[in-house]
Amino acid sequence: MALSGTTQNGTSNEFGDLNLSITGLGVEYPPYLLEPSDLDTLCKRHYAESPAVRAINNYTGIDTRSAIGTVDHPMANMDRAPTIEELCAVFLKDGVALAVTAARKALHEAQLSPSDITHVVSTTCTNSANPGFDHFWRIGKPAYGSEPGARKLISGQEGQGVSGCVGDQQFVGEKRAGQHLGFDVHPLGWKVVLSPRVPKLAAAVVEPAFNDLISTIPNLPPNYKNAADFDWALHPGGATILSGVERAMGITPEHMRASYDTYINHGNSSSATIISVMDRLRQKDMDEIAPGGKVKDFVVGCAFGPGIAVETCILKRNMNHVRRTLVTTGQVTPPETESEGSRSEGEGELEADIQGMKDKGEKLSNTLSSVHPEVPEQGDSLTAALNGVDLD
Amino acid sequence: MALSGTTQNGTSNEFGDLNLSITGLGVEYPPYLLEPSDLDTLCKRHYAESPAVRAINNYTGIDTRSAIGTVDHPMANMDRAPTIEELCAVFLKDGVALAVTAARKALHEAQLSPSDITHVVSTTCTNSANPGFDHFWRIGKPAYGSEPGARKLISGQEGQGVSGCVGDQQFVGEKRAGQHLGFDVHPLGWKVVLSPRVPKLAAAVVEPAFNDLISTIPNLPPNYKNAADFDWALHPGGATILSGVERAMGITPEHMRASYDTYINHGNSSSATIISVMDRLRQKDMDEIAPGGKVKDFVVGCAFGPGIAVETCILKRNMNHVRRTLVTTGQVTPPETESEGSRSEGEGELEADIQGMKDKGEKLSNTLSSVHPEVPEQGDSLTAALNGVDLD
Repeated sequence: MALSGTTQNGTSNEFGDLNLSITGLGVEYPPYLLEPSDLDTLCKRHYAESPAVRAINNYTGIDTRSAIGTVDHPMANMDRAPTIEELCAVFLKDGVALAVTAARKALHEAQLSPSDITHVVSTTCTNSANPGFDHFWRIGKPAYGSEPGARKLISGQEGQGVSGCVGDQQFVGEKRAGQHLGFDVHPLGWKVVLSPRVPKLAAAVVEPAFNDLISTIPNLPPNYKNAADFDWALHPGGATILSGVERAMGITPEHMRASYDTYINHGNSSSATIISVMDRLRQKDMDEIAPGGKVKDFVVGCAFGPGIAVETCILKRNMNHVRRTLVTTGQVTPPETESEGSRSEGEGELEADIQGMKDKGEKLSNTLSSVHPEVPEQGDSLTAALNGVDLD
Repeated sequence: MALSGTTQNGTSNEFGDLNLSITGLGVEYPPYLLEPSDLDTLCKRHYAESPAVRAINNYTGIDTRSAIGTVDHPMANMDRAPTIEELCAVFLKDGVALAVTAARKALHEAQLSPSDITHVVSTTCTNSANPGFDHFWRIGKPAYGSEPGARKLISGQEGQGVSGCVGDQQFVGEKRAGQHLGFDVHPLGWKVVLSPRVPKLAAAVVEPAFNDLISTIPNLPPNYKNAADFDWALHPGGATILSGVERAMGITPEHMRASYDTYINHGNSSSATIISVMDRLRQKDMDEIAPGGKVKDFVVGCAFGPGIAVETCILKRNMNHVRRTLVTTGQVTPPETESEGSRSEGEGELEADIQGMKDKGEKLSNTLSSVHPEVPEQGDSLTAALNGVDLD
């Protein structure tokens, strides 16, 4: 894919001029899949007195979440909460292994070796490590470069999944909407700050960001004007964020098919998720449920960050690209499980999943409306979760 | 200043071609200066039984360290160590204020307004905050850009000082030498991993990094070949790192005059320090003690990071640059103190300071040799401190 965007001084960027391409993408999720019933088991162990938490778990619209262990993982079964130091140790062991595998997949597709890489950019909200995973990976002789030939490896790591892509980045149209989402340090790990207004704010901020972005790319084909003319790779921050953006932008779940599929099968993996969505969107079975059966040449990439900030970009598909898939040996992390693979096989199944997820969301909304007629402006993360946000 | 470097694929970069310049630099230290006697007071309060810690404090070669408070600051006088959460709160209050002031200075010199900025890069080893300080600063409409006209604000924040520069960056010649320096999370803050081999490793890695860098810039004037032909802006990680690089590279303290001056007057402010050194190097009084009275047109920038990693760049001075200095009101942070200003007035004083620092280092080395004939390969941070490393 090639990326386009705009500059602060109003000059426009052509896809060719920018010379930015994603030449390889790699995604690696941990091997275990947890269903709502598994999380219910965990909740009962630690929060037996909080039926509300257990109820929410059934309304997220997430069928399975990828995890580094089962509900019997020692870290999830201590007689106290793990400390930030203990969480760091698990991250460095399991997170780094996932990042290395994802990076290898991306490099394989791009036909590059680690020594070709001049610049590594990684992102995570789950840990802080100095040196970072690139140190453990020991990629030849890394160096920063800004010349057109520079090859950069962009990678994300989260508790639930890891994604990587080779290419470059251009984010534009960032809008800020107050501090409603954050992650600050605490002796027990990074604590999420999550306002119940996140879904509404996120949905509202996408339209101006999209309009700003489109206005700076004058040479798009004439049939790419409105949101529904594009495919969408939206960060699936939660069920109500997906449905809110749909309503705000006049698009359908089919436009965001890869966002739904990723969310339903793996949940929200925070900053790494957008790369997973982009990887999913290019897979053959996703084309079958494109709106009106027509796969779009241009894709809107859209992700949310702390603040809230929203970052958008336009990607152009490379239809001639031959995808080279690296078969992993399973030595670093086990290969994807059977149930994960079978999840995304057919058109009918995903559409049924999306409908099921929407029904659940509506039911939860109705229940909430009768219990809490007004969502408070500021609330705790429980309220936010009740609104269908999946912890960023 | 303009920057130069090289690419992984062997193509060379000319200063003009790269189109990268630092057009503004801003540095802001917190208002208090702590002397070794102040730290001794603190040590006696909390570690009365550890005379070794107190002794080291007299051998760092640091006359004063910049601090956000006196030894009576509440955070330094609790009946327990502060938690990572409490440290985060202090950082967000005092660190963000310093970063904003430093950024304003840099913007003022560059004659830019916040809305001109397309990209903010910030660095710190002292905290993790999402959103970061740029959120609080609320700079117009930030966006990433890679086109030549993009203006980026690079900023660093540390416990002791804050630096900022407007420009772009190019790091090359990164060499890795095992994990001897790190910062990982802990309920009581980021814990330093510091091996006693850091000074030796750091000194040893600079020569190959410098040689790699020089070999990729073929069009330097013929009188810029060896290390001593350049001025040096070296990260002052500790007294023995400075003296070790001197020996390894055949350069004098006068080549690294700004590194010594920054270290002696403010200590090591971690990742932000290199920007302070660059800002100090361009000041008039520094020119008076240039080697042989000759200020060099080209400067080697060299900093160390976790791993250890070393990053080097070549900067070309802009002799025609007229520096615009922002007079701060003192509302955000008090202006520099009298003692800080008087520190760097004359040639004689700094040279005497450097000599005094070296004498102390030698005395400590001799003492250590008689007590510990061999420095262990792996040791605790106390041993490292005894070797003249100032906590990264």
